[in-house]
Amino acid sequence: MTSDIWDAEARRTYSYLGPAGTFTEAALAQVPEARGQIWHSVRNVAEALADVTAGRSDAAMIAIENSVDGGVSTAQDALATVPGLRIVGEYLVPVSFVLVAKPGTRLEDVSLIAAHPVAYAQCLQWLGANLPAHAHVPAASNVASALGILDGTSDADAAIAPPGILDHHELELLAEDIGDNPNAVTRFVLVSKSAPPQSPTGADKTSLIVELPEDHPGALLDMLEQFATRGINLSLLASRPIGDELGRYRFVVDADGHVRDERMADALLGLRRFSPKVTFLGSYPRADRAIVRYPQRYSDDVFVEARDWLRGILSGEPEV
Amino acid sequence: MTSDIWDAEARRTYSYLGPAGTFTEAALAQVPEARGQIWHSVRNVAEALADVTAGRSDAAMIAIENSVDGGVSTAQDALATVPGLRIVGEYLVPVSFVLVAKPGTRLEDVSLIAAHPVAYAQCLQWLGANLPAHAHVPAASNVASALGILDGTSDADAAIAPPGILDHHELELLAEDIGDNPNAVTRFVLVSKSAPPQSPTGADKTSLIVELPEDHPGALLDMLEQFATRGINLSLLASRPIGDELGRYRFVVDADGHVRDERMADALLGLRRFSPKVTFLGSYPRADRAIVRYPQRYSDDVFVEARDWLRGILSGEPEV
Amino acid sequence: MTSDIWDAEARRTYSYLGPAGTFTEAALAQVPEARGQIWHSVRNVAEALADVTAGRSDAAMIAIENSVDGGVSTAQDALATVPGLRIVGEYLVPVSFVLVAKPGTRLEDVSLIAAHPVAYAQCLQWLGANLPAHAHVPAASNVASALGILDGTSDADAAIAPPGILDHHELELLAEDIGDNPNAVTRFVLVSKSAPPQSPTGADKTSLIVELPEDHPGALLDMLEQFATRGINLSLLASRPIGDELGRYRFVVDADGHVRDERMADALLGLRRFSPKVTFLGSYPRADRAIVRYPQRYSDDVFVEARDWLRGILSGEPEV
Amino acid sequence: MTSDIWDAEARRTYSYLGPAGTFTEAALAQVPEARGQIWHSVRNVAEALADVTAGRSDAAMIAIENSVDGGVSTAQDALATVPGLRIVGEYLVPVSFVLVAKPGTRLEDVSLIAAHPVAYAQCLQWLGANLPAHAHVPAASNVASALGILDGTSDADAAIAPPGILDHHELELLAEDIGDNPNAVTRFVLVSKSAPPQSPTGADKTSLIVELPEDHPGALLDMLEQFATRGINLSLLASRPIGDELGRYRFVVDADGHVRDERMADALLGLRRFSPKVTFLGSYPRADRAIVRYPQRYSDDVFVEARDWLRGILSGEPEV
Repeated sequence: MTSDIWDAEARRTYSYLGPAGTFTEAALAQVPEARGQIWHSVRNVAEALADVTAGRSDAAMIAIENSVDGGVSTAQDALATVPGLRIVGEYLVPVSFVLVAKPGTRLEDVSLIAAHPVAYAQCLQWLGANLPAHAHVPAASNVASALGILDGTSDADAAIAPPGILDHHELELLAEDIGDNPNAVTRFVLVSKSAPPQSPTGADKTSLIVELPEDHPGALLDMLEQFATRGINLSLLASRPIGDELGRYRFVVDADGHVRDERMADALLGLRRFSPKVTFLGSYPRADRAIVRYPQRYSDDVFVEARDWLRGILSGEPEV
Repeated sequence: MTSDIWDAEARRTYSYLGPAGTFTEAALAQVPEARGQIWHSVRNVAEALADVTAGRSDAAMIAIENSVDGGVSTAQDALATVPGLRIVGEYLVPVSFVLVAKPGTRLEDVSLIAAHPVAYAQCLQWLGANLPAHAHVPAASNVASALGILDGTSDADAAIAPPGILDHHELELLAEDIGDNPNAVTRFVLVSKSAPPQSPTGADKTSLIVELPEDHPGALLDMLEQFATRGINLSLLASRPIGDELGRYRFVVDADGHVRDERMADALLGLRRFSPKVTFLGSYPRADRAIVRYPQRYSDDVFVEARDWLRGILSGEPEV
Repeated sequence: MTSDIWDAEARRTYSYLGPAGTFTEAALAQVPEARGQIWHSVRNVAEALADVTAGRSDAAMIAIENSVDGGVSTAQDALATVPGLRIVGEYLVPVSFVLVAKPGTRLEDVSLIAAHPVAYAQCLQWLGANLPAHAHVPAASNVASALGILDGTSDADAAIAPPGILDHHELELLAEDIGDNPNAVTRFVLVSKSAPPQSPTGADKTSLIVELPEDHPGALLDMLEQFATRGINLSLLASRPIGDELGRYRFVVDADGHVRDERMADALLGLRRFSPKVTFLGSYPRADRAIVRYPQRYSDDVFVEARDWLRGILSGEPEV
Repeated sequence: MTSDIWDAEARRTYSYLGPAGTFTEAALAQVPEARGQIWHSVRNVAEALADVTAGRSDAAMIAIENSVDGGVSTAQDALATVPGLRIVGEYLVPVSFVLVAKPGTRLEDVSLIAAHPVAYAQCLQWLGANLPAHAHVPAASNVASALGILDGTSDADAAIAPPGILDHHELELLAEDIGDNPNAVTRFVLVSKSAPPQSPTGADKTSLIVELPEDHPGALLDMLEQFATRGINLSLLASRPIGDELGRYRFVVDADGHVRDERMADALLGLRRFSPKVTFLGSYPRADRAIVRYPQRYSDDVFVEARDWLRGILSGEPEV
């Protein structure tokens, strides 16, 4: 995590939302290639991506979706608007929270709670049941919430933080596992500059941003059919406002499969013809390494056979 | 129409449903290339197509659809099952009918009427109004119906025939224009052996036979969507039983456009992947020479642009 | 089969395509209620249906589809255009054919063959293999073909007829089972005047004629979706020209289920809204008595529950 | 805005995200019926809705969508999970922001910025261009951001706030109109307890929460078709995680029209049959009062005519 100045040239740099102890850092720790490299802590997603486009970092780890709170809209919007990026990997981090306070604090003393808004949203049930009269002070990160209590910059009585916080700081543990969903998980993506897609693994995912063509009723249906008619399942479909006026959206799409799969390439061609405003964000291995299943009639050899057949027609061969 | 025996080698032969005077002969007369060539009169569609596949004829003119009676099922079935054929042209013949009899016959004497079944079906209203008590004797062609009366092989009192019959034979004209639809027209196609498609003219039609995959509910919907999602209009969709059991159909499809149009080629690829049992019958100019209209987003250049875009993705270029 | 003049008032009359020995008569013999009633032989479908609309008959048996030759277009067109009719039953008759001739004839003597066109179409393979040089003389019915040979009104050498012909007439049997499909079957429907539909049996079929709205691209897709989105399978979809110009079709539809099934009633409502030109021909038990299967989510109770839910919304009840 | 204690019983109470000066208060000011009533400032959406369900308030005004940042996920999730609520009105508030600080501060002194996360997201471009090295401290509301600076509970150097803040507090105006989109607007809904829907106005909107049935590929397509096949346009389609595991979503839907419109009632029935997990949030007048346009074939009288037709079929009347 420290940079050795004498061989920085030869080492790769990874930007991530810090400080040490965040879930983003835990995601980066899952990347084998990142071990022993330079980890550059930044304060927001835009900064992380700017590091990549400016060449200051080789890749950036950003949170993209949470199983409880949903898409991380700033990350989705950044990927939709910053050109020249490519997602190269996906990582899942289980999310659990503790309630911590200055040593000596008791749960019944807690009234004001510091928490990052996304973390706060994931603990609402527990808070409603155990601290119904609390108020919320938003914090900049899941670590900053606790640090503010320790250094006195926050007048909150307690903070919501990841369990790892207890390894680094002297804090009173008021409650564990206060997240409403014991299976909560956050999905991160590793983003680099544009490059040719990695080879398919059979367990791949393709990420896209699709802006629907205007004045075309039923455009969303048409877009979804580009995938459905090629046997491609979508694992994510999120709408994001384009931002110019209410009611205009772009869609964040994760589709099962790789751009080098025939059915995906064909779907992308169909999508592009349908809407010139489609952005390819990358084809990369799924975090869970689950092999993509699809009907046999969408396999590569079916596509190849159809092309051979068409070629025969054009050359005038009789069909058999 | 007679063959000069000494240069038969150098001339082309066209088979058609005769004898002279049929609507099929009128269709063949519309083919500029057929003038001065050998016209071979046959007795049924199967014989005409067999002439082509055996090499005895260069092409065969066959009736394929009537505006009143619908698809000519024997012709459709023959095209669906005889391999190695290709439709190369389409011709329309206005259809009108007269009621004729032996000289001296009066309309009130008519009880038994000879008529080709398709012609008979087109005159039902007139017959119901003018000869409600008639009976029908099917005839092998629109000319044979009248000839049988003249040569005594039929005991019918009158015959339904094309108006041209009066030019060749001594017959009593009992009624004119007895067809129920004054705009009736029969569509013919000229069929040759498999060959590369002619160049697109912008006013083309593509004919196909599609057998739906089994055990695939909604297969017809899927089939139609292959065309709809590429902006291709169908001018004909007829179901024909496959013949092995009730409830199993193949479809006769005429689609606007040419196999060398990008959108049509893409639809055919989709169709072939969807059902390996698709037969290409040909891309050829429409009889009416009407230019095919389609939404701009299905034009050739949109397909080319999408392929360029995909190529850029695969090579790792940043999108602009 | 003869009418007792003194109690004709009390008996029912059934019209059918005769004479005795036709497949239509065999279909009528399957109707328990028709036994001992008056059977009225007619010469064509129009006459049979006119008997019903005029009140001369209580019902008419007509052939509607053949597993080899397809829809009987005259019957389909008559049902589409004659108002006030209702299909009340469906019957299947296995179809097989024999080749018969005057006593003493041998197969090798046969050159000209009399056959009803539909029967002829079903024997083409056998004829091609065994009598390749034959010619065809159309006959008015499967019985008339043979009678013409016996009484000399036809100069055909042999006739295609149902096997039962041998029970009634002195004929030489030249070949048996000459039909190309050993499982060939013809489907008949019994037609009465308009009346409330019979009770559902769980094994029902609903017949419709649908004319697509004009100037509505994709209308056929929309029509099919009315059924697909209610889990209704179609056992028949046949296109028939409307007759006014080439390229305009109506569709003959047989759908699994009964108009008193919720999903069917809902589909009919959707269909009617989509096209005012939809004609209900009847809901009646399937000939094969096969229980209609459909996804649980289209069962009657799901429809009832949804209506209850909507009623609750309108009354302002909180949802549970 | 003050409560007269002696007639509180007779007056209505409205909960809103305070304190005075928030955009939510501006939305509430648009409600004619709320004038002169009790306005109850709360600290978060959950508290506002709890006031309604517990009967402490008659209605709550909550922000539901922002033209730049998208759906307000906590509000959407609350509406999806808290039973017994109904949306009764929609209000739009133009959104613009100023950057303020303690008197005497200069723009070049600013490093740490307090801002509500939604406001922060809407000023990213301005901040990137003018204060690229800033850090963000989330605030609980657009007013709290500035108040924290004044009362010393926040150590931020500047705050993002609505322009109205300057009317109430002594602050230095560092920059105006710092929002990235000059047309930014936030959409609010007024929520009451369940009650019968108000009468249609012709310019209505219906809000729904739809959870797709599991193990049903293409379920989203099916859901969208429920609307498309009734000519209903969607003005909002947002996905929200259900929260139990990654990849499971519910959808927030705003559809043009009123539950008392025939086409909408029919779509809701279809939707309910398709997924029992559909929640009706309300039919209410659109904020912009724009009359809903739809194809004539989905008008109420078409639905009524179809029902009459079906009734005729069931009673056995001949069709005309």
